[in-house]
Amino acid sequence: MPQNRLFYNHFVLPESQRDLLNVVLVSPRNPLNIGAAARAMANFGLRRLSVVAPFDPTWREARSAIGAPELLQNAKSTECLAEAVASCTLVVGTGTQTYRKPEQRVVPLPELAPIVSRELTRGGRIALVFGSEKHGLTREDLSYCHILVEIPTDPQQPSMNLGQAVAVCLYELTRRAESAPATPISSITSAPLSGRLDLLAGVIEEAMQAVGYSPRAMHPANRHDLRLMLRRLSLSAHDTRRILGLFRRILWRINHLER
Amino acid sequence: MPQNRLFYNHFVLPESQRDLLNVVLVSPRNPLNIGAAARAMANFGLRRLSVVAPFDPTWREARSAIGAPELLQNAKSTECLAEAVASCTLVVGTGTQTYRKPEQRVVPLPELAPIVSRELTRGGRIALVFGSEKHGLTREDLSYCHILVEIPTDPQQPSMNLGQAVAVCLYELTRRAESAPATPISSITSAPLSGRLDLLAGVIEEAMQAVGYSPRAMHPANRHDLRLMLRRLSLSAHDTRRILGLFRRILWRINHLER
Repeated sequence: MPQNRLFYNHFVLPESQRDLLNVVLVSPRNPLNIGAAARAMANFGLRRLSVVAPFDPTWREARSAIGAPELLQNAKSTECLAEAVASCTLVVGTGTQTYRKPEQRVVPLPELAPIVSRELTRGGRIALVFGSEKHGLTREDLSYCHILVEIPTDPQQPSMNLGQAVAVCLYELTRRAESAPATPISSITSAPLSGRLDLLAGVIEEAMQAVGYSPRAMHPANRHDLRLMLRRLSLSAHDTRRILGLFRRILWRINHLER
Repeated sequence: MPQNRLFYNHFVLPESQRDLLNVVLVSPRNPLNIGAAARAMANFGLRRLSVVAPFDPTWREARSAIGAPELLQNAKSTECLAEAVASCTLVVGTGTQTYRKPEQRVVPLPELAPIVSRELTRGGRIALVFGSEKHGLTREDLSYCHILVEIPTDPQQPSMNLGQAVAVCLYELTRRAESAPATPISSITSAPLSGRLDLLAGVIEEAMQAVGYSPRAMHPANRHDLRLMLRRLSLSAHDTRRILGLFRRILWRINHLER
């Protein structure tokens, strides 16, 4: 290890936070990009990588690359984004170069750091989600995100290479952690897990259908809107439990009356 | 070009400074890294790339890559670093993972931005010099540098990929505009009036009672909690209308079944 790196003290992501900031790559096409993302994670002290629906040969090639960091060996592969972020309390989508108007708040990367820092400090688990090289995140992917982040780039050439985008984001997010006081992992976050919000959305949707809230053709749009709304509302775990209880009771009552 | 990139104002490297911040790669070995460095330069609005003593086939391959940015076509190749930085007023060496004690001042990357900014403002020309993938800058190379910069990374894994290191440095040096006022469009959504929230609370409460959500003794406490929760959630007027619609539909359905 080199002797004279004077600024290690600038890198102070506390041990307790290293497993709480996850990187999620959705359908990456290029094994080199997966490797580059993993290397940037190792450079900035992170360990948890998930890859959603990878193209099989790509995934095999990335993991078998010479010198692949250990975290790549331990990376999880999931079928869908919902599964990858199910245990997270804050899901951040990257790259907003879409043709549609985003429904969530969009922040420039420099302003994301304090938001992430606050969430980590209170023990939350964060997913930083990157779309595929070609298309970025889909509308469906975006509906799982609480917030979107954008790297300020030249309007003439806004689209960054995946591995470089990961490196820039992690540089920004870990170097700010220096001001955040280290907190024990035991500190309990009050934000609900993403999977829990999906459960709630499912029960509300069932109630909507039971009462004939809208025509069948509208169901997919309703589901999409509902998922986004539940994330935007910043519900506490307690709120989530209460609303879930209310809608379960509504369903029970309607089933009882219909019998 | 994408429509809704809201934060272009965060990227404000003035046209007059784009030719004043040069990137110099010393003896790069991998054509992909040269391409990645060029792409990061394009992303962050820079145009002047010099490559010192490149391995010939590497250099040819990098320049002929499909989609290589224009600045790569215009890049200069020089025999030695002295020639590449001859017209610069401030030469910044990157990566201080050397075994020797540096003789210059070493600054962490976050502290380099104001130094670079000051130099650009007074019309100076800056070179940001990156060493080869394997060995970094030699002692000879370092002797041309006014100052050294280090990216704060994990001591366990300090060595960054060349293309990623370039991206991180340029992000930091060009992003100065973070103080620019951000205007997320999502904040345009209007908040509901307090009276409207009370109306919503009333309808939800009616539904709670219709389905027997809790014993009568709990009703005042529920009402209180509900009122607080609806305010804490920062619902938009649109959310409020939708939730109101859903609960009215639920009530209508239950009344209909009970009749």
